[in-house]
Amino acid sequence: MYFSQHDIQQFDDRYRALMINSLSGFKSANLIGTADKDGNENLAIVSSVFHLGANPPLMGMIIRPNSVPRHTLENILQTQFYTINHVNTDIVVSAHQTSARYDKTQSEFDAVKLTSQYLNDFSAPYVQQSRVKIGLALRYTQTLEINKTELVIGEIIDVHIECDSICDDGFVDLEKMGTVAVSGLDSYHSTKPLGRLKYAKPFEPPQFIDLENQQPSD
Amino acid sequence: MYFSQHDIQQFDDRYRALMINSLSGFKSANLIGTADKDGNENLAIVSSVFHLGANPPLMGMIIRPNSVPRHTLENILQTQFYTINHVNTDIVVSAHQTSARYDKTQSEFDAVKLTSQYLNDFSAPYVQQSRVKIGLALRYTQTLEINKTELVIGEIIDVHIECDSICDDGFVDLEKMGTVAVSGLDSYHSTKPLGRLKYAKPFEPPQFIDLENQQPSD
Repeated sequence: MYFSQHDIQQFDDRYRALMINSLSGFKSANLIGTADKDGNENLAIVSSVFHLGANPPLMGMIIRPNSVPRHTLENILQTQFYTINHVNTDIVVSAHQTSARYDKTQSEFDAVKLTSQYLNDFSAPYVQQSRVKIGLALRYTQTLEINKTELVIGEIIDVHIECDSICDDGFVDLEKMGTVAVSGLDSYHSTKPLGRLKYAKPFEPPQFIDLENQQPSD
Repeated sequence: MYFSQHDIQQFDDRYRALMINSLSGFKSANLIGTADKDGNENLAIVSSVFHLGANPPLMGMIIRPNSVPRHTLENILQTQFYTINHVNTDIVVSAHQTSARYDKTQSEFDAVKLTSQYLNDFSAPYVQQSRVKIGLALRYTQTLEINKTELVIGEIIDVHIECDSICDDGFVDLEKMGTVAVSGLDSYHSTKPLGRLKYAKPFEPPQFIDLENQQPSD
């Protein structure tokens, strides 16, 4: 099936949004925890968090101009701190519900029955039920003129991960913790391992990393 | 388990890269197809493609300063066109192998035994074995000064999707096409459906979309 630029322009808005959101592939599912300067908490699901670099440890995300996470953006700009919390299979329904357009004064933590948690004097709230919790300090924001979305870059300050999920080499086993993936606007997925592949070298055949608890397939 | 900013600074480079790359959650797995002005083809796996907007239809990606996809970036800047091709379970090993540091003159298509394909007069090569193929025109690049990575934004010009994988509402069933997800630097995953959730509204209980071929769980 072929769609031209012209076909895509002719789609109705909802159809276009669902289709184009599917085209990037599987996306991360994260809850962004913030509070304003008076301590009013906010929580928003975001599927645009991406890895930007390991040294310094940086994560990026995209915030849409008129979306619910706009409250999130206001809080980040005000306080300079926020948390990223992985959505897992146990909290996927509550996490999705944070995308409803609650008033700014309504805490999504209360509305969707997730618990805010403060750790190590970090000023922004974590999600207690999440198993990978990251505290970030704002480092850079920029409005992307091409479509007025906001690029937000933060540096990782604190990381909390459930025990026994980090391999000896640093790899974090997201599957073991039930972290989910998103596709399109509203579809959630758990994952199954296909295997880890060794660092690739030219003219050497690809090899799976032999992990006791991971049966390579394919 | 808790890691501070200081702990992360002390990690060795490989450990830090593996761990920090895991923290954003599941990532998309895409092959970027390009050719230089003389028609020399290049193919590189990238896990940083993200959705930027549906109208106009835009996709972003991050290219590291000294990475193999640097050849890809050179070709994109030279020709202004590139393709994004979903990695599926059948081609995951070949796709990973494109990350080896082949010479610029060596086509990764040949080296990893994937087939280049030209469709609808689009000048950049697609991956024949991929089931979601997107042709893009470069719209914007920017060096992010914070870590010298390159933000590359393209507009979707052409889309080729295997038949019967688009729902009536525009949702593309990536699972049906075997699109994979990545975690960390080298771990590949297939997915299982947890369900699609309806557009969330405040104070209405979350509801799964009832799809004949999709049994909501959770």
